[in-house]
Order: sequence, then C-alpha cells, then structure tokens
Amino acid sequence: MSTPAFDPRSLRALVFDVFGTVVDWRSSIIREGQLLSAAKGLQVDWPAFADAWRAGYVPAMDRTRGAGQAWIDIDTLHRQILETLLPRFGLQSLDEAERAALNRVWHRLMPWPDAVGGLNRLKSRFTIASLSNGNVGLLVAMAKNAGLPWDCVLSGELVQRYKPDPAVYLLPARLFGCAPDQLLMVAAHVDDLRGAQASGLRTAYVHRPLEFGPDAPPRPARPEGFDLVATDFLDLAQQLGA
Amino acid sequence: MSTPAFDPRSLRALVFDVFGTVVDWRSSIIREGQLLSAAKGLQVDWPAFADAWRAGYVPAMDRTRGAGQAWIDIDTLHRQILETLLPRFGLQSLDEAERAALNRVWHRLMPWPDAVGGLNRLKSRFTIASLSNGNVGLLVAMAKNAGLPWDCVLSGELVQRYKPDPAVYLLPARLFGCAPDQLLMVAAHVDDLRGAQASGLRTAYVHRPLEFGPDAPPRPARPEGFDLVATDFLDLAQQLGA
Repeated sequence: MSTPAFDPRSLRALVFDVFGTVVDWRSSIIREGQLLSAAKGLQVDWPAFADAWRAGYVPAMDRTRGAGQAWIDIDTLHRQILETLLPRFGLQSLDEAERAALNRVWHRLMPWPDAVGGLNRLKSRFTIASLSNGNVGLLVAMAKNAGLPWDCVLSGELVQRYKPDPAVYLLPARLFGCAPDQLLMVAAHVDDLRGAQASGLRTAYVHRPLEFGPDAPPRPARPEGFDLVATDFLDLAQQLGA
Repeated sequence: MSTPAFDPRSLRALVFDVFGTVVDWRSSIIREGQLLSAAKGLQVDWPAFADAWRAGYVPAMDRTRGAGQAWIDIDTLHRQILETLLPRFGLQSLDEAERAALNRVWHRLMPWPDAVGGLNRLKSRFTIASLSNGNVGLLVAMAKNAGLPWDCVLSGELVQRYKPDPAVYLLPARLFGCAPDQLLMVAAHVDDLRGAQASGLRTAYVHRPLEFGPDAPPRPARPEGFDLVATDFLDLAQQLGA
C-alpha cells in the first residue's frame, strides 16, 4: 500500500458505505422479484431489472447536484427510476400499493454473509456508523430488518448532499469531534474511498466480487493506495484486532 | 387525559429525551465525584456540585439562542459551566486532563434501572431514537457505555438548535418520512412534552421522581394533557403492547 501505515488505536470510529459493501442489493432485489413473480404469475428478467434499477442511481443523484437543484432523497429517486422500468420489464400492471412495496425492497436488503458477524466484532472495539447515500429512514429500517448493529446512522441526508461530496465525508469528524484521519471509511468501491481520502479519512477496501453478479467483469481484489484491504468484514475485524 | 386517544399501531417511531428520562445524571455525577474524591483525597459536596452543574445547563443553552449567536454543543457548554464550578467546590487543583475527564462524565451517565430492559422491549416493536439536546458524539458514547439500544441517534445538533425549538421536534418526522403525530415523544419533563405537542407529536410522560434527588420537591406523577403517562419504561412498554 502506498499510504503510510496507521495505528488502529488512533481510530475514533469506523464509517461504512452500505449499498454493496454491507448489503447485497442485487441478490436481494432478484429474490424479492422472484417472490413477486411467484405471487402474481409474472415473467420478468429480475437480474436485468436489478442491474437497471441500480444503474439509474448515479445519474439520478447527479441530477440533484446542479446549482439551484433541491436535494431529493434516495427513496424518491428509487421510485422515479422504478417508474421508468415498469413498462420496460412488463410490470405496468402493478398498482400503487405494489409499486410502493417494491420500492421499499431497498429497506429490506440482505447483508453479505459476513456482515452482521463482522460488524458485531468491530462494534465491540470501535464505534461503527453508516455513511451512506441512503436516507436515514431507509437505513434505520434496513438495520432493524437485517440486524445491522450501528452505533449511529449517518447519511448524506443529514447534510443534504450525496457522496462523493466532501460535506458527507466530513460529517462524522464534526459529529464525533475528531480529526478526519481518526476515522476509517470502509467501502467496496474505489471511488468512494478516493473521495474519503480526499477529505483526509483513513480507508479500508473490502472486496465484494459478487456485487454486480457472478458474470460481471472482475474487479480488483487488492487495489493499491488504501490503508487496509480486506476480503470481508471478518478479515477486517481480524486486521483491526477486534 | 385531555388529548384524544390514539392507536399505538399508528406510530412510526418513539423518540426519547435522554438526560433525566433515560439516564440518572445526578446519581452518576455524584458517584463519579465520590470516586474522584477517593482517588485524590478531596472533600466536595458532590450532590450540590451535580445540581449546580445541571442548573447551569438551561441558561447556557439560552445564551446560544439569540439572534447572531452561533450554536455551541453541550460538551462545550458543560465544560464552560464546569470551569465556573471548580473554584466554588474546591476543585481548582484539577489539571487539564482531569477536567476533560470529569467533563466526559456526561458521556458515562448510567441508565435508570428499567431503561435498558424497557428500551429493548420497545425496540422489538418500534423504531426507537434519542431526541436529545446532547450532541451526537456524547449520545453515541453514552449508548455504547450504558447499552442503550437506539435504532437511531438524533440530536438537536443535527439542526443546530436546542429543544424546545420546533426544528428539533420536527426533525424525526422529516427523517422518517411520516407525520408528526406518528411519533411519540417520551420524556420525564412537562416542558419538553409541551414543546413536542406544539409540533404535533404524540406524548408520553414518564415519572422520574428521583431525577433531582430524594429531597427535591415532589413532581407530578400523573400530569394532565399527555397521551400516555407511565411509571417507567417497562410500564410504557406494557401500555404500548411491546
């Protein structure tokens, strides 16, 4: 790694990306979709549907960033994207209640198999908080549903910005009254970690090779330039002595 | 009760005052003070010290409310008050590290005997969040130390205001995407609950007769005008079917 070694004892808190890092959004959406197919007798390509829904996310956030644009929460953005997908995937017959319920699948995403056990180990030694573009209500509902033991739910919503806006990365240092380099950002996404680094946070990359499915192009297992690289949260806990 | 009955099933979340409602600040400060006396050989009237520290809190917050005043967090206000108390209570000899450690007693306040058990029961049925004038870092440290199982740590710090400013009471409705009357404010203080009512929240009064010590003037056990009145958090859980 090219950045200097650091002492985990200097850390005041660990902050986590959530979608893809803690929870497996793709498998969760596919499974809920398959349940919907079974209940309604619908034929849908759910893997393609999941990928299309997620693909709409970054462009939707980007539309809220421009000067004079009001911040809009992820629940609303997910619903806007969903409305464009329904006709493409043969789901026009869903009524309002069914659409609202499907949109809330993002509140019910399932953790990666190591995530809850790893978070509980990390929590025994460190303060652990989400630092997600998901809105607070979504993150709290997800945590209750999946057993994510956050000490604190932090979201870009609290500063009305989306990562990689520095205001999001600087929020936990302000709230926890510490220096940015006393925080460790944990994420499965190089861009997110680069944003955290630019605001002075320490960084841990966690490899999630299945985030975009088993047939997606391989992503790096050990990218350069981060303080830690871990195979999963249990490995991260081990490396941090938790 | 003069307000209309409500159905607990309509509630989206319970939000809690913390100092005095969840934790027993007075006994906690006295006990930590007595430990400090034992360690340092100091003679201090710790009950009077605890009462004086707490008595400085409302005036300190009020000084931050005026036009053109910057918001200041409770850790800083507690330290400012502490500095005025040290000479009055014969504690001038404490050095900087000892003063900082004493100020953090507010991060280590102990829950009332029913609080953790009651919160765990309530959490099994409802989303539970703090809604405190304590800053986020203080509330997170307290929760880890005392085992308070918050689903979400909410603080006036997130809107840079102190209760009874309506911006604080309206924060959870905004974050959880619900109407104010889908939230239940739980507090041992009539003024706090009146503030919550003025913003449209449902209210539960919890009687904490010992908050200001066994010799303080009695406070009402069953004040009028709130949706629920409970003897403690276990009674509240019982009344809410949790």
